[in-house]
Amino acid sequence: MTQISQNSSNLTHLDNQGQAQMVDVSHKTATVREAVAAASVRMLSETFATIQAGNAPKGDVLGTARLAGIMAAKQTSNLIPLCHPLPLHKVKVQIEPDSHLPGYQITALVKTKAETGVEMEALTAVSVAALTLYDMAKALEKSISIEAIRLVSKSGGKSGDYHQAE
Amino acid sequence: MTQISQNSSNLTHLDNQGQAQMVDVSHKTATVREAVAAASVRMLSETFATIQAGNAPKGDVLGTARLAGIMAAKQTSNLIPLCHPLPLHKVKVQIEPDSHLPGYQITALVKTKAETGVEMEALTAVSVAALTLYDMAKALEKSISIEAIRLVSKSGGKSGDYHQAE
Amino acid sequence: MTQISQNSSNLTHLDNQGQAQMVDVSHKTATVREAVAAASVRMLSETFATIQAGNAPKGDVLGTARLAGIMAAKQTSNLIPLCHPLPLHKVKVQIEPDSHLPGYQITALVKTKAETGVEMEALTAVSVAALTLYDMAKALEKSISIEAIRLVSKSGGKSGDYHQAE
Amino acid sequence: MTQISQNSSNLTHLDNQGQAQMVDVSHKTATVREAVAAASVRMLSETFATIQAGNAPKGDVLGTARLAGIMAAKQTSNLIPLCHPLPLHKVKVQIEPDSHLPGYQITALVKTKAETGVEMEALTAVSVAALTLYDMAKALEKSISIEAIRLVSKSGGKSGDYHQAE
Amino acid sequence: MTQISQNSSNLTHLDNQGQAQMVDVSHKTATVREAVAAASVRMLSETFATIQAGNAPKGDVLGTARLAGIMAAKQTSNLIPLCHPLPLHKVKVQIEPDSHLPGYQITALVKTKAETGVEMEALTAVSVAALTLYDMAKALEKSISIEAIRLVSKSGGKSGDYHQAE
Amino acid sequence: MTQISQNSSNLTHLDNQGQAQMVDVSHKTATVREAVAAASVRMLSETFATIQAGNAPKGDVLGTARLAGIMAAKQTSNLIPLCHPLPLHKVKVQIEPDSHLPGYQITALVKTKAETGVEMEALTAVSVAALTLYDMAKALEKSISIEAIRLVSKSGGKSGDYHQAE
Repeated sequence: MTQISQNSSNLTHLDNQGQAQMVDVSHKTATVREAVAAASVRMLSETFATIQAGNAPKGDVLGTARLAGIMAAKQTSNLIPLCHPLPLHKVKVQIEPDSHLPGYQITALVKTKAETGVEMEALTAVSVAALTLYDMAKALEKSISIEAIRLVSKSGGKSGDYHQAE
Repeated sequence: MTQISQNSSNLTHLDNQGQAQMVDVSHKTATVREAVAAASVRMLSETFATIQAGNAPKGDVLGTARLAGIMAAKQTSNLIPLCHPLPLHKVKVQIEPDSHLPGYQITALVKTKAETGVEMEALTAVSVAALTLYDMAKALEKSISIEAIRLVSKSGGKSGDYHQAE
Repeated sequence: MTQISQNSSNLTHLDNQGQAQMVDVSHKTATVREAVAAASVRMLSETFATIQAGNAPKGDVLGTARLAGIMAAKQTSNLIPLCHPLPLHKVKVQIEPDSHLPGYQITALVKTKAETGVEMEALTAVSVAALTLYDMAKALEKSISIEAIRLVSKSGGKSGDYHQAE
Repeated sequence: MTQISQNSSNLTHLDNQGQAQMVDVSHKTATVREAVAAASVRMLSETFATIQAGNAPKGDVLGTARLAGIMAAKQTSNLIPLCHPLPLHKVKVQIEPDSHLPGYQITALVKTKAETGVEMEALTAVSVAALTLYDMAKALEKSISIEAIRLVSKSGGKSGDYHQAE
Repeated sequence: MTQISQNSSNLTHLDNQGQAQMVDVSHKTATVREAVAAASVRMLSETFATIQAGNAPKGDVLGTARLAGIMAAKQTSNLIPLCHPLPLHKVKVQIEPDSHLPGYQITALVKTKAETGVEMEALTAVSVAALTLYDMAKALEKSISIEAIRLVSKSGGKSGDYHQAE
Repeated sequence: MTQISQNSSNLTHLDNQGQAQMVDVSHKTATVREAVAAASVRMLSETFATIQAGNAPKGDVLGTARLAGIMAAKQTSNLIPLCHPLPLHKVKVQIEPDSHLPGYQITALVKTKAETGVEMEALTAVSVAALTLYDMAKALEKSISIEAIRLVSKSGGKSGDYHQAE
């Protein structure tokens, strides 16, 4: 699929003087919109083994990161300057161990019924969930890195659906 | 340098029942601490060219992302559940175009005088600056990805200095 | 009335893997919803007499607690991890002296037009109003206690109306 | 022990015109201070059994409430109008099942090194943890009540230590 | 035009006991509403010249103030106790140099589709943009003053349109 | 006194590339600092009379505005992008009727012990207190204006004391 907008001649968040603004969405229709984002957290295999072990009895490592992602989705418009504040109808964050990475694969799904989409909310959720994993493991390893924060898919809205290329 | 803590047998944010807590730092000394973090934002060359052009007259694209990163550093303890709230003494975010990526290289430097370090503040700053770039360019390209969010260096505190391996 | 849901076999905020999520309300209809919550603040009679006297000229003790409750209602979705962010259409907090307690009876009424209810907003309002009373009186008495934070009634929404049993 | 201050003739948060203010603590010394607060959440035995069962595999019910309490402690000065913003050096929230209640006993311990105490932070932590339990169980039972939010003990500061009477 | 409401006999934010409340708007219709507010920032001509020079290469002085205004509009209901939380559909802040003042003229336009208006959001945006200019120039001159924060116009809603008198 | 800094050749919040940053204060000493700011709110005499009457029984109009100012002081570093987050040791807001204006004179005093001053906190407090007065009276008169937001005095810190010229 095409990944570059045909109307690539301008940046929508800048007005015709090049100044940042929150763009007008009042003419748009409130429709159900959904976005899925993902991120990877890569670490040494010793670190991965320790978290897997530490998480076993009670789930607080991954549970804490999931919660942080959900709560961060609700802070998106306070963090991203030109984001519109939106109601959110669903937020789900999942974190799966990936022994090949080694590390964790994080995905977030966000849904709303609004005049604009929730891509930034999903991306913010996975970013903060990943940062929270970093925080909980940084005493073990400072070289953990967060990789490939990306939009997996979106649906709803006039600009059409999107699925990342394989 | 060694990147894995010798004391890898536990996760400091979990108590001995495996429950998440904000760890006690009251016995530590307030010292000057500094952390540098980095991230990359990779995009298609057309997207990169459009942002570079759009940013030219007034700087609001990169300026907006820098500001978002600085302000996000101040929200770190509200976003990362087990982070200690800290005073911050300096926050600087830099965003450099990288035509080879193509995209942008983001770095953040944070300083404080406190009982614990500011790694998470620097990592949060680069993450939110990167998300803001995504937000401003997403109408052009949805496949932009944020890569290699990582700690570059830290100094101060009992655990010693750290510089990422080359 | 029955106070236990017939569908008591699961907790709606956990998915089928037992993981916390913000549940999907996008299929629900936005309707007018209202909730009333209450709390009691019990103190020694000397403390009660001092607040009653101190509050007399200008009302700043109870006025401060009322304001704190109203403002806290607006923070509910930032405090309660799985709460949906909602517009609020009315928030009213009332605090009545109760010389028999002795102390204060607090009630909050919250209204919205949304896909989900405002019970948590009303409960948060009375809780923070009560905590604010504690804060303002704690130099007088540390043994003040907050009692019986509860939902008094709710209306609107598919799950039907609720009134607490006498 | 005496639970009523000898200097009960005024409310410290009101100036001599009866107006609310954030009192001056700049003449006080920053010392290590600690506070412990508690709350109970009472529910029907069916509700208690369902939460206990639902919480078993992964711990997300109680884990979510603990996290909410920890994060709320950091919001205390934004919620309680006349509270001083403080650094926090430790926050720990514990939630124990109590089959006799039936329900849960919540305690929070908060530590800082500051010019004023952290009683309100501990009380806010248990309150929000309790509200989060309510939120997660409210689809099962709306008559859950939060009881006995109280200060258990405090130490540090010129006003001396405090332990609640048995 | 008449600038004083005919129904001047009461303050809508006080109930009939004189207590502050967030007034009920649930019976109102969600319609498109717009508000424009303005403010002036007056300074010595030397200060003005320095900012104009300093802003030239990259725009970060005025760009920072514009961003601060946009982000503050989204915080309005957290700052103004009785304001309703609202979705915002457009926020635009403009800052123009005025060599006759000397200083800057700030305007903000805010749009929504909601049950109540966005006057406070526009006024908050210009106020915080002005405070940010003060912050960035205060090392040069402490006697900068912010003048004439006012509503320029509003449209939408049952109370009719408003334009400030010339 | 001189109101223009001798070192007027640069804007401290811009680095040598003209980019906004939070300036380094880690080399400065934490000392007691105090700032006083003021603002005026001007309205029609009918509006003034109505507020004075409405405020009489319970004080909630001016009390609400005072509280909003105190709470806003604590949000300063979240609103002003390059402000350092600081502990605050005292915040007091006063609002006096001025029948000659007609309207209200607002002053705020803020104290801290920190590496940098609290001018912005005092200015933010009076601004938000003034906006809250506007909000509570806007149903009566939309032409209310906020005037002369200014620093009255500051003390503490290396840059010396300041008092506004008469």
